[in-house]
Amino acid sequence: MVQIPTTPAPPTPPAPRPVPTSADVARLAGVSRATVSYVLNNTSAVRISEPTRQRVHDAARELGYVPHAAARSLRAGHSRMVLMPAPAVAAGPLYSQFVHDLQQALSQIGYTVVQYGASGMHGQEAVRSWAELRPVAVLVPGNGISAEGVAVLKRSGAKAVVVLAAEHVPGAHTLILDHADVGRLAARHLHERGRRRIGVVVPVERGMDMFSGPRLAGVREELAGTGAEVVALPMAHTEESAAELAARWPELGLDAVFGYNDEYALPLARALQDRGVDIPGDVAVVGADDLLIARLARPRLTSVAIRLPAGPALADLVDRAVHRPGTEAEHPGAIQVALVVRESS
Amino acid sequence: MVQIPTTPAPPTPPAPRPVPTSADVARLAGVSRATVSYVLNNTSAVRISEPTRQRVHDAARELGYVPHAAARSLRAGHSRMVLMPAPAVAAGPLYSQFVHDLQQALSQIGYTVVQYGASGMHGQEAVRSWAELRPVAVLVPGNGISAEGVAVLKRSGAKAVVVLAAEHVPGAHTLILDHADVGRLAARHLHERGRRRIGVVVPVERGMDMFSGPRLAGVREELAGTGAEVVALPMAHTEESAAELAARWPELGLDAVFGYNDEYALPLARALQDRGVDIPGDVAVVGADDLLIARLARPRLTSVAIRLPAGPALADLVDRAVHRPGTEAEHPGAIQVALVVRESS
Repeated sequence: MVQIPTTPAPPTPPAPRPVPTSADVARLAGVSRATVSYVLNNTSAVRISEPTRQRVHDAARELGYVPHAAARSLRAGHSRMVLMPAPAVAAGPLYSQFVHDLQQALSQIGYTVVQYGASGMHGQEAVRSWAELRPVAVLVPGNGISAEGVAVLKRSGAKAVVVLAAEHVPGAHTLILDHADVGRLAARHLHERGRRRIGVVVPVERGMDMFSGPRLAGVREELAGTGAEVVALPMAHTEESAAELAARWPELGLDAVFGYNDEYALPLARALQDRGVDIPGDVAVVGADDLLIARLARPRLTSVAIRLPAGPALADLVDRAVHRPGTEAEHPGAIQVALVVRESS
Repeated sequence: MVQIPTTPAPPTPPAPRPVPTSADVARLAGVSRATVSYVLNNTSAVRISEPTRQRVHDAARELGYVPHAAARSLRAGHSRMVLMPAPAVAAGPLYSQFVHDLQQALSQIGYTVVQYGASGMHGQEAVRSWAELRPVAVLVPGNGISAEGVAVLKRSGAKAVVVLAAEHVPGAHTLILDHADVGRLAARHLHERGRRRIGVVVPVERGMDMFSGPRLAGVREELAGTGAEVVALPMAHTEESAAELAARWPELGLDAVFGYNDEYALPLARALQDRGVDIPGDVAVVGADDLLIARLARPRLTSVAIRLPAGPALADLVDRAVHRPGTEAEHPGAIQVALVVRESS
């Protein structure tokens, strides 16, 4: 455990040093506040002599003055911030890599990516809190924004709103990702492999239902009217929960399982094998996300790959949308999902 | 691949609608800008009649006015933003869970967590960019800040700077995490198990050297003078790279490997087993982070657990530091690392 020190009763802290302002810099440099602003924000439209520039920089350094980001962007008339609401659940390997690649690509073209997490807020309240930061673009990775929300963001200055969602959101560039398709693909494959009693893992952790609900629904929809049975299997992302579920397998009598994703499918597959269940002989297993760990398992795990946009491509989309505000793509883009068949099914 | 649509030559976009300001709200409501500010920022010190409040809220809603976050916090004299620089590498499962738990805990006590990624900047330039957002607290998860950097943040208004680093940073609350200790623990264990030719995986991906360098150094330090040999093994986080490394094993002649962490150790262990190498009989394997996947492997993976602070405990530390600016913990806290011994070694 972390030994987080509890500080003893503190002495009276020294009076806090006031934060230097541009007025302080102006006073010290013997120039106007406007001049300070032009110099520190590199406003090329205004000619300032080199000695004056130097005095301003020296004064700023001496006082430890850092321009206020929002004030600077207000004056310059633009922001370079791309805001992404932080997901409601801990990011898995697929999403972590996606965000990292996007962040790198946007940084290279001069944007700053801010992942914003204030999980106490929802709906329009959350959207308003994003708007307060005055981002130039907002990228919403889940089904978390309505047309009204997009309007609030644009009215507060956002030039582009890019959304990954199951359906087109008016006013936004939408990339269609319907999690039900993940379930449909898995179910279709298992049915083709002759499976008729199919379990579907439903993660119990908070916030997961936004993804697991549609996936389960996709499985049910795909198998409706086929005579196959679908059984929901609540499971936590732990060895213990997987073992409990595996212990019930004889009574469940299932011949296949869609494990929600690789991170849940693998512990369950392991627990089943520990109990002597043969995969795929007795039980076919399918995951999703096509993580590296799916390829390390024996048998290798069949998995639904979700091809999130590559960093540079999505960064370019954001940049184009920022420079042409008001024009949405005529047709939403679509994120491909594809089954990668391996030995576990 | 994503079908990211390329928009055809756009029609002239409509003139952008100007962003409403508090002056617009004041005009519409028939009140002063100060009154607008008092009402929308809920400044309880000033009494405003209920009808006036209602007029202001109605005008704001009609115009779609959202207060500017930074301006609001400037007036109120405080911010609720906790800034964390985004890591230079894609977050692994350990770090993702840590950030998520911390974000949840800080949200519950009224803070907003912002992960800030502008990877083009380094050192003092990066610190200044964080300072521009005027966060009330900054949490630096790696060895990325100096005493000067802490001073810049505090001069710009940050009341608390919390750092996870190998050594105490003056002016900051430091939680000591020395990655060399991860290497030392792994090496000590392997030596105790009689291993004398020890490979150490060195991830090739950009940004990883900040962690892998110290870990390798810790292994070398622990085994200096013992007669054991240490061999650095560059490896990418892919099945292919693990297979290439495993193919060289006969010539390498190693009897143990510290796989940097579980995510690299597991593909390597799998590649070795695919080539008929017995683990631990021929080669002992140790990872780090103690992820769930370490327990799923057969044999289960010995791993160095890194006990990052729990969300609520760290959130409380940040909150206490914010309310008592200027008082640093007398002794830095320490993050425990501990070896979890399993069958792979």
